[in-house]
Amino acid sequence: MPMTYDEKRAGCIRQMLVNTRLDGLICLLPENLVLLAGYWPVIGHAAVIYPREGDPVIVAPVLDERALERATVRDVRTFPVFKLDAPPPPESLARMVADVLQEKGLAGRRLGFDGTFGDISPTQKVLEPWVPSGETWALLRRASGGAEWIDISPHLAEQRICKTEFEIERIRIACEIADFGLRAFREGVEEGKRETDLAADIEAAIMREGTGYKGTLHARGQAFVFSGVERLYRHGWGVAPNTDRRLQPGDLVMVELSVVADGYFADLARMRVVGKATEAQREAYEACVAAQEAALAVIRRGVAAGEVDRAARDVFRRRGLGQAFVHLTGHGVGFRYHDGPPFLLPGVETPLDIGMVHSVEPGIYTPDLGGLRLEDDVVVTETGHEVLSKAPRDLEG
Amino acid sequence: MPMTYDEKRAGCIRQMLVNTRLDGLICLLPENLVLLAGYWPVIGHAAVIYPREGDPVIVAPVLDERALERATVRDVRTFPVFKLDAPPPPESLARMVADVLQEKGLAGRRLGFDGTFGDISPTQKVLEPWVPSGETWALLRRASGGAEWIDISPHLAEQRICKTEFEIERIRIACEIADFGLRAFREGVEEGKRETDLAADIEAAIMREGTGYKGTLHARGQAFVFSGVERLYRHGWGVAPNTDRRLQPGDLVMVELSVVADGYFADLARMRVVGKATEAQREAYEACVAAQEAALAVIRRGVAAGEVDRAARDVFRRRGLGQAFVHLTGHGVGFRYHDGPPFLLPGVETPLDIGMVHSVEPGIYTPDLGGLRLEDDVVVTETGHEVLSKAPRDLEG
Repeated sequence: MPMTYDEKRAGCIRQMLVNTRLDGLICLLPENLVLLAGYWPVIGHAAVIYPREGDPVIVAPVLDERALERATVRDVRTFPVFKLDAPPPPESLARMVADVLQEKGLAGRRLGFDGTFGDISPTQKVLEPWVPSGETWALLRRASGGAEWIDISPHLAEQRICKTEFEIERIRIACEIADFGLRAFREGVEEGKRETDLAADIEAAIMREGTGYKGTLHARGQAFVFSGVERLYRHGWGVAPNTDRRLQPGDLVMVELSVVADGYFADLARMRVVGKATEAQREAYEACVAAQEAALAVIRRGVAAGEVDRAARDVFRRRGLGQAFVHLTGHGVGFRYHDGPPFLLPGVETPLDIGMVHSVEPGIYTPDLGGLRLEDDVVVTETGHEVLSKAPRDLEG
Repeated sequence: MPMTYDEKRAGCIRQMLVNTRLDGLICLLPENLVLLAGYWPVIGHAAVIYPREGDPVIVAPVLDERALERATVRDVRTFPVFKLDAPPPPESLARMVADVLQEKGLAGRRLGFDGTFGDISPTQKVLEPWVPSGETWALLRRASGGAEWIDISPHLAEQRICKTEFEIERIRIACEIADFGLRAFREGVEEGKRETDLAADIEAAIMREGTGYKGTLHARGQAFVFSGVERLYRHGWGVAPNTDRRLQPGDLVMVELSVVADGYFADLARMRVVGKATEAQREAYEACVAAQEAALAVIRRGVAAGEVDRAARDVFRRRGLGQAFVHLTGHGVGFRYHDGPPFLLPGVETPLDIGMVHSVEPGIYTPDLGGLRLEDDVVVTETGHEVLSKAPRDLEG
């Protein structure tokens, strides 16, 4: 990990502050700390204060020290937590933020913050993510010397659409780590195995081989495994917990896989068959492969997102499978599992741009076969695009 | 899982509605959906509407159908998601909530909601938890026919303190599933193994053996492994990601383990040594065991939470280790990994009450040994208390 500063992103953030006539920014959501400071919070209760002029500051609990070593922001101030003599984290955060605002001349000024969200990236404590709400924001408001607070969530979402080289390199690592999980999936599909066992294999491989990979501190996956006609048809097009269903000969098996590596995400899907595929399964899967290839063939800067969707959808339509492709062809990925635009959907005229990272995931769902999907992540480049995920795509063998 | 309705909890909620002079309740956070309806949402965008009179209603995405089978609320209404013809989930949710409010005579009335939070329980999609914020609440307000909205987060937090028999049974299952992970920990501690490998073993065992255990749909753990003097001293008293440090002969190894089973949580910690313990390690560990036993000996209805803390703290003080016990003796657990009161801290006068489920986790941290902690979950009963977690506690052998 040679790069420790992302000049491109810093420039974009300053420009955003100028455009929105803000004196500074204070963000709390994990995906925005990654965006602004390359920092994936461990327990939460952390903030980045970004003045329009001068250096940004991270305020964070002392337990985050390893994660903070990777941050692109050098001015890091930590406070004690959990020990008997430590105040509650929201209070420590608010007090330290007050000091920083004072020091940076931001007290009583015009501040942007990330107050609107729905799906979010978790902290590293994934079974208890931290989400700032009423109480925390109230403390921070009181700490701001009468500042004017402007919720700039839409601007931050826009910042997240096009990734810098620095960020793409990290998403590439997440995709490479995902491949360890997909290898476990390929090797693990066999008669008698339960969906949940396969998911455990995949997630364990990601943690084992991902931790330390190219300097990664924390790698983690969540695998959604769907097997057999009924499961695939009922849930395969979405997200649903694994079952203890055992794989049967001839079953199609799908894995929908989310991977996070130090705060950067990959989103992939692969198919396998237990034993040999039937002609119908093979044909349907070939349609997915052809649809993905057709989509990839048109992905380049300036092309409307809807055109990529149409390229994939046309492949299915020509084979009489148009109605079976029930979902979108792709969405942004990187700072989150699902990272907003670009949305590759019918009619979307938004042009693709350099640095957009998005999924390409054609899939079909029918009552006779269940469902099939193939999903990879690509980045739009100067000269076309690059597929970031390299795991083999074959259904059998 | 014979019980499908929790009459005790339903009574408590009705009483809360009366006491707060609310006509009804609408909640969105995962821990509150578990509280009100025994339902752990998969992808989020779900709500429970609880009228003061009449039956409560769940509104949820159709993908949650398996989780919904376990709900204690029978009136379940689902809406389509993700497919091309499905509106965005917040819009579907808001429209369906509007209909329910109308039908239940709650439109334009006085409604409680869960608008204030910090740490929260995740949805089952742990790498992308869903958190209702500005946009979602704005849509729901517009859907409420001019209702008056009252943030009743503190009342809901109070509801979560004392668990019903129904809820205790489910937390007991989470503790039993945690034991599968702790067995993998005991068996996995050996020279040369990395912290991250041990964590992968533990989490995989929980997923493999927990799924389907006593009907559990989704079991998942997060293991924080700390090994060796430096790691234990720097991070062992808190939460921090695993490293690729390899276990050395003589190392103390700690696992801090969070487990969720269908929305109910356990929180445990165990210690092992690589090879044989030194006399100093053994003595320090025995101090933790003695402190835990001293705490357990006083846990019963009516005892002040601070008294339990003092019992544990006195054991360390008498051995000259008072300063090394830097954190609390316990906290509530069940609807979340850390579920608020009771806080077993010096001076807390809150009396323990029947149905409180809390951790008992004495620990000491010194520069020479690193750190040691022993953590179990107990429930306060009519006759004293019951330890819900049964995993062996031995340091070696």
